[in-house]
Amino acid sequence: MWGGRFAEGPSAIMREINASIPFDKALWRQDIAASKAHVGMLGAQGIVAPEDAATIAAGLDQVAAEYEANGVPEDWDLEDIHMTTESRLAALIGPVAGRLHTARSRNDQVATDFRLWVRDAIDQADAGLAALQRALVDRAGEHAASIMPGFTHLQTAQPVTLGHHLMAYYEMAARDRSRFADARARMNRCPLGAAALAGTGFPIDRQATAVALGFDGPTDNSLDSVSDRDFALDYLMAASQCALHLSRLAEEFIIWASQPFGFVRLPDSLSTGSSIMPQKKNPDAAELVRGHAGRIVGCLTALMITMKGLPLAYSKDMQDDKPPVFEAAGLLTLCLAAMTGMVAATQFRTDRMRAAAELGYATATDLADWLVRQANIPFREAHHITGAAVKLAESKGVALDQLPLEELQAIDARIDQRVFAALSVEASVAARASHGGTAPAEVEKRVAAARTALGLG
Amino acid sequence: MWGGRFAEGPSAIMREINASIPFDKALWRQDIAASKAHVGMLGAQGIVAPEDAATIAAGLDQVAAEYEANGVPEDWDLEDIHMTTESRLAALIGPVAGRLHTARSRNDQVATDFRLWVRDAIDQADAGLAALQRALVDRAGEHAASIMPGFTHLQTAQPVTLGHHLMAYYEMAARDRSRFADARARMNRCPLGAAALAGTGFPIDRQATAVALGFDGPTDNSLDSVSDRDFALDYLMAASQCALHLSRLAEEFIIWASQPFGFVRLPDSLSTGSSIMPQKKNPDAAELVRGHAGRIVGCLTALMITMKGLPLAYSKDMQDDKPPVFEAAGLLTLCLAAMTGMVAATQFRTDRMRAAAELGYATATDLADWLVRQANIPFREAHHITGAAVKLAESKGVALDQLPLEELQAIDARIDQRVFAALSVEASVAARASHGGTAPAEVEKRVAAARTALGLG
Amino acid sequence: MWGGRFAEGPSAIMREINASIPFDKALWRQDIAASKAHVGMLGAQGIVAPEDAATIAAGLDQVAAEYEANGVPEDWDLEDIHMTTESRLAALIGPVAGRLHTARSRNDQVATDFRLWVRDAIDQADAGLAALQRALVDRAGEHAASIMPGFTHLQTAQPVTLGHHLMAYYEMAARDRSRFADARARMNRCPLGAAALAGTGFPIDRQATAVALGFDGPTDNSLDSVSDRDFALDYLMAASQCALHLSRLAEEFIIWASQPFGFVRLPDSLSTGSSIMPQKKNPDAAELVRGHAGRIVGCLTALMITMKGLPLAYSKDMQDDKPPVFEAAGLLTLCLAAMTGMVAATQFRTDRMRAAAELGYATATDLADWLVRQANIPFREAHHITGAAVKLAESKGVALDQLPLEELQAIDARIDQRVFAALSVEASVAARASHGGTAPAEVEKRVAAARTALGLG
Amino acid sequence: MWGGRFAEGPSAIMREINASIPFDKALWRQDIAASKAHVGMLGAQGIVAPEDAATIAAGLDQVAAEYEANGVPEDWDLEDIHMTTESRLAALIGPVAGRLHTARSRNDQVATDFRLWVRDAIDQADAGLAALQRALVDRAGEHAASIMPGFTHLQTAQPVTLGHHLMAYYEMAARDRSRFADARARMNRCPLGAAALAGTGFPIDRQATAVALGFDGPTDNSLDSVSDRDFALDYLMAASQCALHLSRLAEEFIIWASQPFGFVRLPDSLSTGSSIMPQKKNPDAAELVRGHAGRIVGCLTALMITMKGLPLAYSKDMQDDKPPVFEAAGLLTLCLAAMTGMVAATQFRTDRMRAAAELGYATATDLADWLVRQANIPFREAHHITGAAVKLAESKGVALDQLPLEELQAIDARIDQRVFAALSVEASVAARASHGGTAPAEVEKRVAAARTALGLG
Repeated sequence: MWGGRFAEGPSAIMREINASIPFDKALWRQDIAASKAHVGMLGAQGIVAPEDAATIAAGLDQVAAEYEANGVPEDWDLEDIHMTTESRLAALIGPVAGRLHTARSRNDQVATDFRLWVRDAIDQADAGLAALQRALVDRAGEHAASIMPGFTHLQTAQPVTLGHHLMAYYEMAARDRSRFADARARMNRCPLGAAALAGTGFPIDRQATAVALGFDGPTDNSLDSVSDRDFALDYLMAASQCALHLSRLAEEFIIWASQPFGFVRLPDSLSTGSSIMPQKKNPDAAELVRGHAGRIVGCLTALMITMKGLPLAYSKDMQDDKPPVFEAAGLLTLCLAAMTGMVAATQFRTDRMRAAAELGYATATDLADWLVRQANIPFREAHHITGAAVKLAESKGVALDQLPLEELQAIDARIDQRVFAALSVEASVAARASHGGTAPAEVEKRVAAARTALGLG
Repeated sequence: MWGGRFAEGPSAIMREINASIPFDKALWRQDIAASKAHVGMLGAQGIVAPEDAATIAAGLDQVAAEYEANGVPEDWDLEDIHMTTESRLAALIGPVAGRLHTARSRNDQVATDFRLWVRDAIDQADAGLAALQRALVDRAGEHAASIMPGFTHLQTAQPVTLGHHLMAYYEMAARDRSRFADARARMNRCPLGAAALAGTGFPIDRQATAVALGFDGPTDNSLDSVSDRDFALDYLMAASQCALHLSRLAEEFIIWASQPFGFVRLPDSLSTGSSIMPQKKNPDAAELVRGHAGRIVGCLTALMITMKGLPLAYSKDMQDDKPPVFEAAGLLTLCLAAMTGMVAATQFRTDRMRAAAELGYATATDLADWLVRQANIPFREAHHITGAAVKLAESKGVALDQLPLEELQAIDARIDQRVFAALSVEASVAARASHGGTAPAEVEKRVAAARTALGLG
Repeated sequence: MWGGRFAEGPSAIMREINASIPFDKALWRQDIAASKAHVGMLGAQGIVAPEDAATIAAGLDQVAAEYEANGVPEDWDLEDIHMTTESRLAALIGPVAGRLHTARSRNDQVATDFRLWVRDAIDQADAGLAALQRALVDRAGEHAASIMPGFTHLQTAQPVTLGHHLMAYYEMAARDRSRFADARARMNRCPLGAAALAGTGFPIDRQATAVALGFDGPTDNSLDSVSDRDFALDYLMAASQCALHLSRLAEEFIIWASQPFGFVRLPDSLSTGSSIMPQKKNPDAAELVRGHAGRIVGCLTALMITMKGLPLAYSKDMQDDKPPVFEAAGLLTLCLAAMTGMVAATQFRTDRMRAAAELGYATATDLADWLVRQANIPFREAHHITGAAVKLAESKGVALDQLPLEELQAIDARIDQRVFAALSVEASVAARASHGGTAPAEVEKRVAAARTALGLG
Repeated sequence: MWGGRFAEGPSAIMREINASIPFDKALWRQDIAASKAHVGMLGAQGIVAPEDAATIAAGLDQVAAEYEANGVPEDWDLEDIHMTTESRLAALIGPVAGRLHTARSRNDQVATDFRLWVRDAIDQADAGLAALQRALVDRAGEHAASIMPGFTHLQTAQPVTLGHHLMAYYEMAARDRSRFADARARMNRCPLGAAALAGTGFPIDRQATAVALGFDGPTDNSLDSVSDRDFALDYLMAASQCALHLSRLAEEFIIWASQPFGFVRLPDSLSTGSSIMPQKKNPDAAELVRGHAGRIVGCLTALMITMKGLPLAYSKDMQDDKPPVFEAAGLLTLCLAAMTGMVAATQFRTDRMRAAAELGYATATDLADWLVRQANIPFREAHHITGAAVKLAESKGVALDQLPLEELQAIDARIDQRVFAALSVEASVAARASHGGTAPAEVEKRVAAARTALGLG
């Protein structure tokens, strides 16, 4: 297929290192679609005779049917999905198949195919994220008023509601969707017609093929068209950030499922046991999600390194664009599905969460805030007074609101009986009603807005 | 500053590992601005007395003036820019300074400051990219018809024009700008008011502080607000892609400046010599740009790893967000400026480029295309015939258009005299007039569109 | 300093991107040492007159004394530490200073300086690791019999001893030390004398300079000598693995310090408080250690990317070798010191650890093993029987050893009274006396071996 | 297989995310070997009856024979290679198969299997590197005196010999082999017997299984044994450095194969053509090697991220250790073979190399050195004089040794006729006879030493 110039065929090692068919056969649907759009245009423009174009299109349909039925054959001598398809086409319809490759090159062909594939992967990620958001919103609505300890530094900080906590991940998922949407909009230009690198002398209609394939229009520079892999990097970057978010949620489920926390009972369906310890119920799915973040980021790193310092236009290094994207997309799909299942089916042990919220002096800030409001003390001073109260309570082994009033007053005389109303965890969360705060009413408002955004009525 | 609870001060090692003031002092302008917006709102809402608010605002102005004049002092005991500023404020205005920290925490404060800083860095990157685009468009306009070899696999592929080649980088820069713009839009929500993690019980007006700081509005979940560093990752991802693009351009300049290529004379002002080899003129700036791509991607990798698996809400690990962003932003600014200077001032040796374009059988595709068009041969067959012609020319050590007609006809009888008109490099580039192709007329069209987009009239 | 060939000086941007003096001044001690070794050899070989060599050596001592007293001046026009030093030397001793650069180039000079610096960093890392090991061994000895839950998947798995757990990190540190030692041995060859890239025509004695600088001998290929940065990568790889180990220990301390676990009280001296929540005592040092792992790995990634695809010999990209190494070394030193302090000073709450070990059916494996041994049942069957016992105990809310014998016998009749002796946590750990197992006697054996290895008598 | 505790089976998503059999079936040989060593020891220790041990060993042989003949079946319900094998064993030999899992867990089993696999991969890498070294040494010996331009900054610097250049890669490969050897020595301890995490109460003989599997002895801490993946990281680090070296050699072949350089004709067997440009002969193998460096480093990054912050002991995240190692090992094997083939079969165009060496004033340093030696001028001054000579030669468009003596003397009167003998490329390379220098005699010495080291007689 390289013409008549080579004296010697490829060596065994070359066949193996060079063949991309083992992985790029995943592009077969996109390759067929792009070829059909191309030959349709060639026919419409009179570059090939309309009847030849029709023959080729029908042949491509037949190849597609064969692939659908039997899979794509892997013949390393045919190198890639493009040659595999063209070769089969030639076998089916004869030399007229040779007219398909007019006014294109594998360089713009693969750029087109791969963009189409990535576009589909973006749509799939968006759907997975929407499902995760729905699960989060459902559980958040259920637990808008369930009190748990809010942590910073994994230390009990202030009481929050479980619904509020879950809605934090809703926000992350919303940014992930926005990132995928940006990537989609930026990449939705069609490189077909850039040919090898310089465009073509045939009177092609790039707008037509672009539209036929659902692109917003053709790309504007042929050299860039065949040497650009920004769209793949954009995908991997959005996938990496999404995976990092999921790794955080996974970490929380793992910690929450530990015996000392005991905040959740994970669904049996997403846990495993041990080959040696019969009592074990392990949060494997969450751990795999957390671990997969490493592999997805590794895929991004791989492609960035591969692209570094490549001169224009196409270089064969760029064949290493597909394995990382395919791997990351497969892992991301699994991660999203697993975490959606986990959010939906986990049993939250709200009793244990609430009990934990009452430990750790979580309402100390409420005491400080009360001092600011009631006694008009600067916050810094109030913070210091509260610190003394916490120290006293710790030394006595009691909660803040179990300290006798007189002992509190010995610390600061401006404290009075009303303070105890501020020190319950319910009062604490109810008070934090600023926009985006943890107050149940505020959480319900955010859940309602999210349900509307998700079209959940 | 941690209240009255600690029995023992931090150890020497703790002071050193914990202090962020050596780097986060870079945030001082943002920290002052955010504090002023916050205290203005506190006053307007009556959370602090208006006169106290005014005193604090004036005090902040004075602190800012001191920083501007003398720099920010580095006292590790004050940990960070927030405490450094508040401490100086207290020294200047007394205990009323303690009212500033009402209804906020360092967690939302640093999230706000850092967003403001990153937003500025985005604007700076956009300006740098626009300058690079202007330089590219100027040189591309100048060289819309200058012929050079187009490479794939760094092998001479087809003739292109230098203007076309430069415009490929214009497209990359356009995507970079779009990526930064997306990042800016996504991050432009204000976390101030999320307080430590749960919101606050004070009747703050988050919309007001958001607007005062140029944000589109407040963030919607307080836990997410203090634990989110997506905006920093978005910046680093856009910076990484930009750096990769620049690394490609740098690689080309380095190769072009080599003696065997000799396509460019780099400006003295961006080259260096050798301490031992007096004849050397080295493309150091280009090499540093290429090298810096590694460091910028390293910064992205660093922050991704740091964020992996962090439970909500704020964890101190997140203090490691700033050094990578600061480093990447500094390097990117330099890289953009250096490449802009290089594009603007390089002397292109168009004679050598054109001579190189005539070697390497760069118009072989034109022969194949001619066969398709004139003899209605399927492209695959034409490709094979051309391969034989190239092999013949190689064996005779001549260019394709120096082969005698009869020898060409011996390969395929359908070749006739008219073919030679298609085999010059001028004819080749002129022919590739498809949208985004290398034909000088098409390049001029793209340059004109780019000039309009850049507001260059 | 580039000789007389340049018409135009460097532009402002070039001065800034090109100057390495802001960071490579850290090499001044190494640069002086290498220059002294070089000029000593030049004098001994008669390449410069012995009196000139002596003058230069004395001048270098004076420059060093100035640096020691006042720091290294940063003049961007002098680019780097090499030119800064040579320039100051010339100011002090006149034109004879120009003889120092005979038979060398900045390329071999910086390769030598940087190796010396990295070798010192390796020695420092080794010392830090040894200190960490000593702290681990001390605490492990103290807690060879303190029982805690052993986790897999962060689920209670089997009882272990705290001493055993700590000794796991001793093993990691031992591998880290071995990795640094390997790096040191591999890099300990001297590149000085490779000159720019090709060696030199002067009759130098490379063995002499190598020995004078503590190397095992000279490198064997001059091109490789100036283009090799393996030693920096080896350092960064060892540092990355060490940082990953420390991140695991840090994660454990963070989880153990949480209120639900409550396994440790971290030292005040390595904790911080909150600007808003007076009750907080945050494990900041541990979090920073965990976060720094990201930055250290980011440094490794950066240099790997920078080195990818560089043609021989020296390219200026390689100037980007030093910032990542300097950053990683600084962070690693802090991380090692912080974790050593934390291991040494943390108060282990062994009562809570032991109590946790008794939850979670941690001795279920002991029941299964008892069945294998006493009833000669295949392990798989014993595992199944035990699973049923755990399920029963769970449903009754009791520990395994609180199940009545008859109920156990209803599950499997081969169970008898003796089983209860196997189900205590003490019996469980004592039983696991296989080599490297958690039995206190075995832990003591390992601690003793470690103390011997560390020379602790 | 998780015992009788689970009410519900795994969901479809769980089966897919959890199953490692699709990739860990690659471990089947190691798994069989480790099981045979284990059961042999169990029999010898009397933990299982000797006849049972024999039955199990024979059954394992039968399973192995089946795998060898028909491949390993992929049943996701059996999760991994361990359960797949044990399940098949049970089908073949009945319940006695259940005795195999006595005194071990999948945690130590997989740690053992994977170490064995990595150890084999190290041996394979070493063999591949040795083959590359042999090819390098052969070609270097052939071209010990072939002159080419030595580059720094890809600018002609000084003449070197091609043999010298190739031997630089010999040195890199030697360091790679040393790094793999260090990794092998460090990892060669056997974790079998660590069981789940705590060791076992059965009287096993860990020394015996270690020796049976070719290890130097057992590991010393059971928690570390099941949570350590340093050996995999060590492998990936050595592979990454090796890949970076190969990427540099690949970059050079790509540049050398370009038309303007024309230093090499790559073997047809490792090149490809174009689907559209019939004249193309592309250095695809070299480009793929360069690109694969990205993927191999990506694999390292992936596993480092996955391991970051994991608490002890085993976590399921660690299942993500195998895909990156398998991928990297496969790619590295291909890269080594491809580059070995390329080194062995490339035709070096020594005429073009020599011609290029004479351009670019490559012997300017020789003029400076001559001035130092003959006129006793400090090098810095000689460097400046030479700069002026180069400038003059450039302005006249001639080589240095074509400048008339009087014009040289006008620059510096100390120059005399003898200088011209120093300015030929032959004189230049011959002069650089310092240890490791480019002089043909020195290169021959290095080649001879390398041949001895490789056992090539």
